[in-house]
Amino acid sequence: MKIMIINGPNLNFLGIREKEIYGVMDYNYLVDMVGEEAKLRDIEAVFFQSNHEGDLIDKIQEAYLSKYDGIIINPGGFTHTSVALHDALASVGDMPKVEVHISNISGREAFRHESLTAPACSGQIAGFGLKGYVYAMDAVKDMVLL
Amino acid sequence: MKIMIINGPNLNFLGIREKEIYGVMDYNYLVDMVGEEAKLRDIEAVFFQSNHEGDLIDKIQEAYLSKYDGIIINPGGFTHTSVALHDALASVGDMPKVEVHISNISGREAFRHESLTAPACSGQIAGFGLKGYVYAMDAVKDMVLL
Amino acid sequence: MKIMIINGPNLNFLGIREKEIYGVMDYNYLVDMVGEEAKLRDIEAVFFQSNHEGDLIDKIQEAYLSKYDGIIINPGGFTHTSVALHDALASVGDMPKVEVHISNISGREAFRHESLTAPACSGQIAGFGLKGYVYAMDAVKDMVLL
Amino acid sequence: MKIMIINGPNLNFLGIREKEIYGVMDYNYLVDMVGEEAKLRDIEAVFFQSNHEGDLIDKIQEAYLSKYDGIIINPGGFTHTSVALHDALASVGDMPKVEVHISNISGREAFRHESLTAPACSGQIAGFGLKGYVYAMDAVKDMVLL
Amino acid sequence: MKIMIINGPNLNFLGIREKEIYGVMDYNYLVDMVGEEAKLRDIEAVFFQSNHEGDLIDKIQEAYLSKYDGIIINPGGFTHTSVALHDALASVGDMPKVEVHISNISGREAFRHESLTAPACSGQIAGFGLKGYVYAMDAVKDMVLL
Amino acid sequence: MKIMIINGPNLNFLGIREKEIYGVMDYNYLVDMVGEEAKLRDIEAVFFQSNHEGDLIDKIQEAYLSKYDGIIINPGGFTHTSVALHDALASVGDMPKVEVHISNISGREAFRHESLTAPACSGQIAGFGLKGYVYAMDAVKDMVLL
Amino acid sequence: MKIMIINGPNLNFLGIREKEIYGVMDYNYLVDMVGEEAKLRDIEAVFFQSNHEGDLIDKIQEAYLSKYDGIIINPGGFTHTSVALHDALASVGDMPKVEVHISNISGREAFRHESLTAPACSGQIAGFGLKGYVYAMDAVKDMVLL
Amino acid sequence: MKIMIINGPNLNFLGIREKEIYGVMDYNYLVDMVGEEAKLRDIEAVFFQSNHEGDLIDKIQEAYLSKYDGIIINPGGFTHTSVALHDALASVGDMPKVEVHISNISGREAFRHESLTAPACSGQIAGFGLKGYVYAMDAVKDMVLL
Amino acid sequence: MKIMIINGPNLNFLGIREKEIYGVMDYNYLVDMVGEEAKLRDIEAVFFQSNHEGDLIDKIQEAYLSKYDGIIINPGGFTHTSVALHDALASVGDMPKVEVHISNISGREAFRHESLTAPACSGQIAGFGLKGYVYAMDAVKDMVLL
Amino acid sequence: MKIMIINGPNLNFLGIREKEIYGVMDYNYLVDMVGEEAKLRDIEAVFFQSNHEGDLIDKIQEAYLSKYDGIIINPGGFTHTSVALHDALASVGDMPKVEVHISNISGREAFRHESLTAPACSGQIAGFGLKGYVYAMDAVKDMVLL
Amino acid sequence: MKIMIINGPNLNFLGIREKEIYGVMDYNYLVDMVGEEAKLRDIEAVFFQSNHEGDLIDKIQEAYLSKYDGIIINPGGFTHTSVALHDALASVGDMPKVEVHISNISGREAFRHESLTAPACSGQIAGFGLKGYVYAMDAVKDMVLL
Amino acid sequence: MKIMIINGPNLNFLGIREKEIYGVMDYNYLVDMVGEEAKLRDIEAVFFQSNHEGDLIDKIQEAYLSKYDGIIINPGGFTHTSVALHDALASVGDMPKVEVHISNISGREAFRHESLTAPACSGQIAGFGLKGYVYAMDAVKDMVLL
Repeated sequence: MKIMIINGPNLNFLGIREKEIYGVMDYNYLVDMVGEEAKLRDIEAVFFQSNHEGDLIDKIQEAYLSKYDGIIINPGGFTHTSVALHDALASVGDMPKVEVHISNISGREAFRHESLTAPACSGQIAGFGLKGYVYAMDAVKDMVLL
Repeated sequence: MKIMIINGPNLNFLGIREKEIYGVMDYNYLVDMVGEEAKLRDIEAVFFQSNHEGDLIDKIQEAYLSKYDGIIINPGGFTHTSVALHDALASVGDMPKVEVHISNISGREAFRHESLTAPACSGQIAGFGLKGYVYAMDAVKDMVLL
Repeated sequence: MKIMIINGPNLNFLGIREKEIYGVMDYNYLVDMVGEEAKLRDIEAVFFQSNHEGDLIDKIQEAYLSKYDGIIINPGGFTHTSVALHDALASVGDMPKVEVHISNISGREAFRHESLTAPACSGQIAGFGLKGYVYAMDAVKDMVLL
Repeated sequence: MKIMIINGPNLNFLGIREKEIYGVMDYNYLVDMVGEEAKLRDIEAVFFQSNHEGDLIDKIQEAYLSKYDGIIINPGGFTHTSVALHDALASVGDMPKVEVHISNISGREAFRHESLTAPACSGQIAGFGLKGYVYAMDAVKDMVLL
Repeated sequence: MKIMIINGPNLNFLGIREKEIYGVMDYNYLVDMVGEEAKLRDIEAVFFQSNHEGDLIDKIQEAYLSKYDGIIINPGGFTHTSVALHDALASVGDMPKVEVHISNISGREAFRHESLTAPACSGQIAGFGLKGYVYAMDAVKDMVLL
Repeated sequence: MKIMIINGPNLNFLGIREKEIYGVMDYNYLVDMVGEEAKLRDIEAVFFQSNHEGDLIDKIQEAYLSKYDGIIINPGGFTHTSVALHDALASVGDMPKVEVHISNISGREAFRHESLTAPACSGQIAGFGLKGYVYAMDAVKDMVLL
Repeated sequence: MKIMIINGPNLNFLGIREKEIYGVMDYNYLVDMVGEEAKLRDIEAVFFQSNHEGDLIDKIQEAYLSKYDGIIINPGGFTHTSVALHDALASVGDMPKVEVHISNISGREAFRHESLTAPACSGQIAGFGLKGYVYAMDAVKDMVLL
Repeated sequence: MKIMIINGPNLNFLGIREKEIYGVMDYNYLVDMVGEEAKLRDIEAVFFQSNHEGDLIDKIQEAYLSKYDGIIINPGGFTHTSVALHDALASVGDMPKVEVHISNISGREAFRHESLTAPACSGQIAGFGLKGYVYAMDAVKDMVLL
Repeated sequence: MKIMIINGPNLNFLGIREKEIYGVMDYNYLVDMVGEEAKLRDIEAVFFQSNHEGDLIDKIQEAYLSKYDGIIINPGGFTHTSVALHDALASVGDMPKVEVHISNISGREAFRHESLTAPACSGQIAGFGLKGYVYAMDAVKDMVLL
Repeated sequence: MKIMIINGPNLNFLGIREKEIYGVMDYNYLVDMVGEEAKLRDIEAVFFQSNHEGDLIDKIQEAYLSKYDGIIINPGGFTHTSVALHDALASVGDMPKVEVHISNISGREAFRHESLTAPACSGQIAGFGLKGYVYAMDAVKDMVLL
Repeated sequence: MKIMIINGPNLNFLGIREKEIYGVMDYNYLVDMVGEEAKLRDIEAVFFQSNHEGDLIDKIQEAYLSKYDGIIINPGGFTHTSVALHDALASVGDMPKVEVHISNISGREAFRHESLTAPACSGQIAGFGLKGYVYAMDAVKDMVLL
Repeated sequence: MKIMIINGPNLNFLGIREKEIYGVMDYNYLVDMVGEEAKLRDIEAVFFQSNHEGDLIDKIQEAYLSKYDGIIINPGGFTHTSVALHDALASVGDMPKVEVHISNISGREAFRHESLTAPACSGQIAGFGLKGYVYAMDAVKDMVLL
């Protein structure tokens, strides 16, 4: 089982960025920790981070063309503004797609309350810090095995 | 570890209710399946379902007073309308509280896009069917053990 | 033919409550008058009134489980605020369900102009005083006989 | 007793027009069926249909000047856009006026949720197909006899 | 000097229509009174009333083609809904065009607070009963003589 | 003089609930303190608290039927969402009814700025902690004695 | 007959201020021209201009206390923002009160489309340059003589 | 191949009407030019213009009943206000229907940004002057030949 | 104990102004009655009324600089429009500040439902006529003594 | 004549992407088909596709600097969110610029109803599938030849 | 070079007023510091502060009539509510006018996000504490010297 | 002292782009002029321009990692749409960050009135043409030296 884990803008600044919201661990820790958990589940996890909306779209398309089993995506600030990303997720059809947020976006600024991208995903997990990526991996796995 | 799993209005009609959205398994199956998973994790899971907003608030308060380790709640239709439920969740302070939705509410009617209750929870999991309760249990456990 | 006639909050205060809007006849009169009309149509009409949203949901579910032929509901103030009631009505599927309002809600305060519950019913009748329940009964009957 | 039954734009296309919403019976059937029901109630029902907003206003005024006992009106698409029609209905005072809709407009596009014309009517009946005209006739009769 | 005085929907029902708002005098009185005042000012006043939006547009165009010196228009309920009437008034260019309302529309229902047609007129006079047409005539005259 | 003092959802959690907003004293203290003050004013104060919207409505109706001289109500989170509670308060007519809030709701989240229930009361007192109930008692007394 | 003519902020800058909107004639010309017209009508016109909202309110109250027969007011920018001015106009009861605007405010920036003060006046005249004050004077006179 | 080309309000004033927006050529030129282009494509183009919303609806229905191959419609100001016209276009089903606008409506007043009628058409062409009708004809032809 | 009691625009017109809303007693009565009540409580009450927003701000600053123990303010129409008054109240820090309204503003026009100034006060009392000032005085006293 | 044809995000997924909306033909087919049509019209068509907003802006600037005769652009999801793209199109001045959409965006989700980019183009063509690019080419050609 | 530096409501409370937002230095310090900087630039800076909207308008007009070279204005709370101040600034034409805010208003309460007065200024400087007045002075100087 | 000066989309088209808004000088002139001014202030100014949102984010991060003393950013069209850019600016913490706009955005289209990025900056300077960058440099310097 092969999962693409895509992180959007500013997630490479984990550990630097507003720590009271995003925590003190950095992006490398995220990759290592989630990578470990993937191995425990016999999943090949491929990580990708970019601050470029277009790169995220390209990567979603690549995941489709390379026949990944699922996508985990944290679109960062694009979550609330990107119809293009919504369309990219919608265009790859029925593949399991899970949106993850580190913080509990419902409880932050009003402009973070609605997700434009989640309707094109299978579901959304928010507010559990870096652990959210692990639950998302479980969710993809369960969907694949169904 | 003791977790209260609270289900709001119409969740007792699982298996009857709009099956294309909520699936074919009924409420008893939910209790059994999640109960099994709880045992595997050494968690005492107590289930409660009611169509009454006041009952849900009473139960949240009881969970606090009886020193439960966490709450998993699917507030059903009250998610989008109940300030009282928000206040109840906020009033029990820092206890891990996870909001679960069976369906991917971001992708349904506009009145389901915003959650009034999620800001008073630790986080939200939506769109993974009954499995969402299991991921929520993992999340509560991880938060307790932190 | 068996019809459940459910009245929501404050309808037990008919005859007391703002008489210039709701008329001078009380809830007992409503039950008697509509009961008479039901008999003339060979319909068994069962009446229920509660100020509790949860009770109304319970009753809708009971109507479904007890295989009533139809539901007539005046959700009172819940009409404009209750997603849970909408979901309850939606969850019992294709059964004839008629929403009744005694007053002409379109012509009153702005917050009474939109009904959250009507989309989950077959149709709506508003503005004809207590007679509206009789027309609703005719509507349920016609739908059943179709 | 004499009732004017006014049908607005596109109702002459019943039976052609989106059949899954408006049904398969045509306008002639509507006139015949409602005409029959009128006779059973000793009511003289006069039918009028036009796609012209001005014609509907003229007809409402004629109903007033010719001392009809009541008006049944399905304003079609004008329901949601016509202040002029609202004013016409308001200008003929206390005469029983019933707004009918074949479909359950609360459950359709957002722009059909609010009626500009209903506040100037006695009440509204929506969602019962062609039968709605019959219930409306009963309503007018009951109001006249009161 | 030749002025076209156009009255929109329901103004032929003056004296019948909500008298507490529009007064007790009828449309004939309006024509006679304003006609008299016109004569005193050496103005040829031509009156037109219709409940049909299209007729009002046709008449505005006719006023332009027949080289009238100005238009006085009370668009009735179309004031708040008709882009077409706005466009008709805009299409006849710089000719003096005065919008009149018998009632003080700013102080009535919210949907009467904004005028779609006034931006295409020279100005607006509202709230002075039938006398408003006389002031409008003075305004047209003053603009012509400028 | 007999006054019903109704407290809505989560007010039984005073002293537990967000203390920086609602203070450290608990519900029993509220009952005792206000009860004392009532005695000083020769008022029989009857206290009721429930997390159930329906119970609050039932109690308002009971206050009316048992001929209480006035109602003091803190509807908690229902303040901003309950048309049914508004209607219950409106249905008991001219009896003095005072809405109380412990915190200064105008200065909190936007969803607490508008009260649906206050228009059906005589007035509102907010922001003075538990003392607000005392001022409300004075207000009821003054209204009764007028 | 005695009329108070009140001009609000920036009207003393007529002739300086955006001439393509307000024209080239200055405030003195306005006073002279309208004063002349007042004499022709046997009206004592008293002029007042201030950039201070409070002064306008004071003057409205003075007009009432000094038993003026009517008020003509151009509230300038306060038209769209001042509840206090609305209340002042409302507080002097049934006296004829006419709101005047030099420009056609319906056709300008959106924030000039709604008048907060007009609902507390008898009517409004807008778009006819300085002549609007003359028509307003006619309107006051007609109302007084009625 | 037979196409009905329907032009709404004020399009008969082409060449008179705001020339900087709609150009200097008149309605006859439009008919001639488009007629020529139709001949080149072996299409029978029938032209119709009216300022009456009802006439446009009647004509749409006629096009259906007379088995035209397609409709080209410029609804003018009705584009943004007419649910009735939307319903008329929707009621004639799958026939190719193209909405044309001479000006680039997206770049004009806000009230011209959304089209109520376009959702009931196959597509929309805007901003290309009179040439838009020719591209619309090509579009209808392509759809018919598909 | 010294309290500044500030009344905003039009409150000097008590007894003249819309009596069905504000009552028949005049401003002098208010000063006398509240003054009496102040004496009973050993409070020095200083009264100030102005129709000028700037005067109210000046007075709030004076109250601060002269070390008053509290401010009672009825900002009249400025309640709903004045950010400057909000800022003035906020700028004087923690001093007890009570906003009073004679009428029940929640139940009046929509533009009176939200208060811009109340968030900068300790609390708000509305709907109890002139007595509201007395309860406000009690509130200030209780806050000072705390 | 040289035209730049720019396709935005996800258009490289034609034939994969939601086929019921965008059709079964792929991006290569689009390039071939439109290329053929270009040749028939003696137009040099240069194609560009990118999922990157910045690339689209760069390309628009290149088209300007390389003196292309016109631009055809389908901005995909950026249509509804990109002020930057609007500004890019506006910055290249009077060059013919045509916005194309494959689907009838007016009839889809609300967030697709308004185009931010169209106001900076000459016009818009939507709803005709891949053929829309051909009509756009005709439009550019006609504008150039004018 | 002569510049008028106008400070609106509550700016005389600098050093007292919410220090965490506006800093600890008082109004005198502002005058001294900016006065010094003015001298360094050979500018005559005249300072004015008032809590009265009308005074600010008067002063803007005086600056124009006394041929000042530019205006620097911090309209305080009026920034977001005063059309009259907008009009005053607009009425003095092309003179350099700079709006200054001490705090970064974009990052504060929503009601401080939009400025009604800035569109009538040359530009806006916000968020740099008292230094903003110095940059504004540079800006005026640069504009004058252009 | 080292400052990064970041220019967003279309700023490389200065001198080409809408000159009546952005002026006639080109991007090179901007770099030269601001570079000169930087030298005068002993500041090392590094310039960067890109049409790619991601590049701007990358550069902001680089400025942080390379320990620049401050950032000056003109986010162009991204100002009003980019949560990602807001988050990038917020993620680099307390470093001086100044948002610059060449034009007076408050006075342009409504979609330019609110800045999503400014709340994450220290302050904003708008409307002073290219000179705004110089004032921004002064502002950064003053903040650094504080």
